[in-house]
Amino acid sequence: MSIPTIEFYWDSASPYTYLAATQIEALAARHGARVVWKPFLLGKAFEATGNRMPAAVPAKGRYLYKDVALWAQHYGVPFKFPKVFPVASLASLRIACALAEADVGRWALAVMQAYWSQDQDIGQPEVLKAVAGSLGWDGEALLAQAQTQPVKDRLKANTDEAVRRGVFGAPSFFVGDTLFWGNDRLELLEGVLSGRLAA
Amino acid sequence: MSIPTIEFYWDSASPYTYLAATQIEALAARHGARVVWKPFLLGKAFEATGNRMPAAVPAKGRYLYKDVALWAQHYGVPFKFPKVFPVASLASLRIACALAEADVGRWALAVMQAYWSQDQDIGQPEVLKAVAGSLGWDGEALLAQAQTQPVKDRLKANTDEAVRRGVFGAPSFFVGDTLFWGNDRLELLEGVLSGRLAA
Repeated sequence: MSIPTIEFYWDSASPYTYLAATQIEALAARHGARVVWKPFLLGKAFEATGNRMPAAVPAKGRYLYKDVALWAQHYGVPFKFPKVFPVASLASLRIACALAEADVGRWALAVMQAYWSQDQDIGQPEVLKAVAGSLGWDGEALLAQAQTQPVKDRLKANTDEAVRRGVFGAPSFFVGDTLFWGNDRLELLEGVLSGRLAA
Repeated sequence: MSIPTIEFYWDSASPYTYLAATQIEALAARHGARVVWKPFLLGKAFEATGNRMPAAVPAKGRYLYKDVALWAQHYGVPFKFPKVFPVASLASLRIACALAEADVGRWALAVMQAYWSQDQDIGQPEVLKAVAGSLGWDGEALLAQAQTQPVKDRLKANTDEAVRRGVFGAPSFFVGDTLFWGNDRLELLEGVLSGRLAA
C-alpha cells in the first residue's frame, strides 16, 4: 500500500499557516502519512482569485489578532504578533524552493517560528542567514541560489498550480483532490485521512 | 455563582450558522451554561463592516459547498445544499424577534433544519407557517406580529449591537466580551468556558 500524502501549500507571511505548521507533522505521523511542503505566494493567489487578506476588513483584522493568540494557547505553541506585518515573505519562500524536498519542512518551521514567535523580520537577508545557520546550513549560499531563475520559476509554478487546484488562501492542504483550508480544518483532514469521513 | 452565558448571533441564511446551531446547546449543557439566541441580519453586518459572503470569491464558494457537507458528516447532522441560495431570511428572523426568549432557539433550529436539510424555501410565508405549526405555534399570528414596528426595530437593534461589538460574519458567539466567529471556533469557545484557555 502506498503512503498517504498531505500536500501543504504554505506562505510564511500567514499566521494560520504557522499554527498549522506546528501541528501537521504530528498529525501525519498518527496516520503513517507524509507531508509534502509546498511554498507558494499567498498574495498572488489572492490576486488570482479575488480573495483578500483578513485585515482588509478592519473588524476581521481586530478579531484575527486575538484569535491567533487563542489558537496558539490551544495548541501550546509560542506566539507573538510581529511588529513588521505584513512581512515580505518572498525570499524565505524562494530559499524553500532551493532546498531538497526533505529539508523544506524544517526550513518552513524554523522561518515561521522566527517570525511568528520571535518577532524577527524574515524579509531581511541577515535574519534568513541566521535561521539557515541555526539549521547548520550555509545561508549565504542559499540566498544566492534563491536568486537564480530556476528557483524563482519553481515558486511561480507552485503558486500557479495551487490556484489551478482551487487554492484561495493559506494554509491549504490536499489529500488527493480534496482541499482543506485553514488550521481549523485539520480535524476534517484527519477525518478523511483516517477513513472516518468520506471526502 | 451566576450561570455562564453564550450569546449566539445567528442568521438562518448562513450554512455555518446551521452547523453551529446543531452543536451549541449540547456544548452549553456540558458546562452548565445557557445560550441566548440573537437573530441578526448578516447582510447588514457585511455592509457595515465591508465584509462579503464567501461566495463573492468564486473559488471560496466552490470550496464552501464541499466544506459544509464535510462538517455535517463530521457532526452527524443532516444536510442538503438548498436550491434557493442565497435565501431571503428576513421574515424568519423577524418571527424570531416576535417570540419569547425561551422559544427563539427552538425556532432557529427548526427553521434552519427546514432550509439546510430539507431544501425548503424559508423566504416563503407558507413554509414559515408550516414550521411554526410543527412546533405547535400559530404561524399566521406570528407572521402578522413579525410585520409590527417593535419587532422590526428589535432585529435592527440586534444587528447594530452585533456590529458595535465587532461582529463581521456568522455564526458569531460571545462569552463575556470575547468574540468567536464560526462553527470552527466552538472548540476555542469551549476552552474559554471551561477555563482551560484564558481569553
